[in-house]
Amino acid sequence: MSRLSAVLSSIAPVDPAMLDKAQARLDMLTKPKDSLGRLEEFARKIVAITGTERPRISRKIIFTFAGDHGVADEGVSAFPREVTAQMVLNFLRGGAGINVMARHTGAEVVVVDMGVDHDFNGVAGLIDRKIVRGTKNMRKGPAMTRDEAQRCVEAGIALAEEYASPGVIFGTGEMGIANTTPSSAIIAAFAGISPESVTGRGTGIDDAAFKHKIDVIKDALKVNSPDPSDPIGVLAKVGGAEIAGIAGLILGAASKRIPVVVDGFISTAGALVAYELKPAVRDYIFASHKSVERGHTLMLERMRLRPIVDLDLRLGEGTGAAIGISLVEAGVRIYDEMATFGDAGVSEQR
Amino acid sequence: MSRLSAVLSSIAPVDPAMLDKAQARLDMLTKPKDSLGRLEEFARKIVAITGTERPRISRKIIFTFAGDHGVADEGVSAFPREVTAQMVLNFLRGGAGINVMARHTGAEVVVVDMGVDHDFNGVAGLIDRKIVRGTKNMRKGPAMTRDEAQRCVEAGIALAEEYASPGVIFGTGEMGIANTTPSSAIIAAFAGISPESVTGRGTGIDDAAFKHKIDVIKDALKVNSPDPSDPIGVLAKVGGAEIAGIAGLILGAASKRIPVVVDGFISTAGALVAYELKPAVRDYIFASHKSVERGHTLMLERMRLRPIVDLDLRLGEGTGAAIGISLVEAGVRIYDEMATFGDAGVSEQR
Repeated sequence: MSRLSAVLSSIAPVDPAMLDKAQARLDMLTKPKDSLGRLEEFARKIVAITGTERPRISRKIIFTFAGDHGVADEGVSAFPREVTAQMVLNFLRGGAGINVMARHTGAEVVVVDMGVDHDFNGVAGLIDRKIVRGTKNMRKGPAMTRDEAQRCVEAGIALAEEYASPGVIFGTGEMGIANTTPSSAIIAAFAGISPESVTGRGTGIDDAAFKHKIDVIKDALKVNSPDPSDPIGVLAKVGGAEIAGIAGLILGAASKRIPVVVDGFISTAGALVAYELKPAVRDYIFASHKSVERGHTLMLERMRLRPIVDLDLRLGEGTGAAIGISLVEAGVRIYDEMATFGDAGVSEQR
Repeated sequence: MSRLSAVLSSIAPVDPAMLDKAQARLDMLTKPKDSLGRLEEFARKIVAITGTERPRISRKIIFTFAGDHGVADEGVSAFPREVTAQMVLNFLRGGAGINVMARHTGAEVVVVDMGVDHDFNGVAGLIDRKIVRGTKNMRKGPAMTRDEAQRCVEAGIALAEEYASPGVIFGTGEMGIANTTPSSAIIAAFAGISPESVTGRGTGIDDAAFKHKIDVIKDALKVNSPDPSDPIGVLAKVGGAEIAGIAGLILGAASKRIPVVVDGFISTAGALVAYELKPAVRDYIFASHKSVERGHTLMLERMRLRPIVDLDLRLGEGTGAAIGISLVEAGVRIYDEMATFGDAGVSEQR
C-alpha cells in the first residue's frame, strides 16, 4: 500500500457528539446563547477535530508552497515567471505580505519549494521538496506525470506528519506565477463545468489576456481529458506541484486530527483535490476567506464550506489563512477563557 | 459655546489627497495591485484619518460603556435587569467575552459606568461617569432629560480627549440590558421608518416578546415624537446613557483625528447619533461587523459604511470591535512592513 493509500484509509469524519459536548460548555458561558455566532462554530469544530474537550492552540504554522507552471509560457499571468523564485526569496527575508500577516497572527511561515524552476542553492530557511522544475505546459499535454503528482502529495503528507504536535493549527498558502490557471482547470474538471464560469483575472490581466486564459484552459482540458473520478490524474494533467503539496498537507493534517485553515482560490484547489480523494477531510478544513476569483465559491460550495471573511483578497501566499487562523483561535480562546454564569454570579436567560 | 458645540465645529472631513498618497505607497509593495483588497482600504483610511504618511498603531483601547434602561420594565429582554451590573463586575474580573477578545487583539478594556442602576462603591478599575441611575421608561415619556443626554455625550468626548495619544485606535462596546430597544427606536426615528423593519430579537426573545417589543418601540416613538433634525433630542427621548457615551467618544475621537472601530447594533446607534450631529465623523469610523440585528444594516447604509466581517455576532460589549481593530491593524502593518518591488528585487507587473 502506498503512503497515500495508508493516509487516506486513516482519515475519518469527526464525531458529532463532540460538537454537542462543546455546545454544552459554550451555553454555560456568560453571554446570550449563540451570541458569538461563528466564533462558537469554530470552537465546536476544533473540539471535534482534536477530540479534546478543552483544546488550546499552542502553535500556528502557515505552509507556503511554491511551484512554477509551464502554462505561464502562454502569457496567462500579469507577472513574468521569474517572480515565483524572487518571491520565495522575499518570503525568506520576511518582506512579503504573508510574513507581515503571519507576524500579526503570531504564526510561523514554512516556505516549501515543491517545484520552482530555479536553483536556490540551499538558501537558509527554505524547505527543499522540489519534485519538478516547473510543470510542463498543460495546453500541450499533462503538467506532470502521475508519479510526480503523487510524490508531491506525499511530500505534503510528510510535512504534516513532521510538524504534527498537540495544539498545532496549520494554514496553507502558495506562490506560483500562473497558478490560477490550473486552479480554474481543476474545478472545471471536477464539477464538469465550462472554464468561462470558473476563470478570473488572477493577478490582474486585461480583457484580451482574460479571453486567452479561458481558451488555454479549454485547450488543456481537451488535450488532457482529466477524469474527475481520478483526483491524482486531474492533479497530474491540469494541476501543479504546489497545489499537490497543499492537497497532501491537508490529507496529512486530517489523518493526524490537526485543523487546517485554507487560504484562497489556489489553496482551495488543493483542498478540493484532497476532498475528492477523501470527502471526510472537509471536517478538518476551515475556509479562511472568499476570494475575488470566481471559481472559488464553486469549490467551497462543493465541499460545503463557508468562508470566514470576505475582504476582497486575491494575493494568496497564505495571507487569508493568517486571518482565518486568528479568528479560529479567537473562538477557541472564548471557549477556554470565558467565565461561566455560575463562576461569575451572573443571572441566566429567563 | 458648550463643549459639545466646540467639538462639533472642530471636526472636518479627511483630506482625500492623503488617500492617494497612501495608495501610491501600497502600489510599490511586492504584491499585485489592490490584491490585499480591504486591508489596503483600511491602511489608506488610517493614513487619511491621522494625516500621517507612515502611521503605526501603538495602543488599542476598547471603551465598554454600561447603562440601564427603564424600558426593561416592559419585559423586552431575555435577561433580568440586574445582569447589567453583574456583567460590569465580570468585565472588571476579566471573565467576559470582551475581555477574551481584547486579550486576543492586544487591546485594553476601559469599562465606563454611564448610567447603571447599581452602586458599585468605587470598585477598582471602573471609570465612574454615572449621569443617571438607569434611564426612565421611554414607553411612558423621555428616557432622559436633554441636559442628561448632553452630559453623557460630553462625558464620552472627555474620555476620548483623556485617552488621546499618537498611534492610538479606539473601539466601542456596551452593556445594558434592553438596549437593543432604544437602538431600534433611534434608527426608526432618524430614518422615519416603522419599528417592524428595524427591530430584532436582541439577546434572544420568543415570538410573543418580539411582537411586544415592537409595540413598546411604537408607543415610545408616539409618546415622545422625537425630531430627527435634533439628535440630542432623539438621544434624550428614546436613547440611553451608554449610547450617548459612545456618540461622545466618537465625536471626541474624530475631533482628535483618532480612528474608532465601532462594534455592532447598539454601538452603531451611538455612531449614528454622532453622524446626525456631524456627518463628517463617518470618515473616522470603521464598522467592525454586520450584526444579526435587522436595524444595523440600515444604520450602516445611512452612514455609507461597509462592515469588515460578518460572523453572526450579537453579543456587543465591543467583541466585534476587537476583531475589527485587529484587521485594521493588519492593514496598517501591511502598509508599514511589506517590502517594495525595488527593495526586494522582484519584477513588476507587465
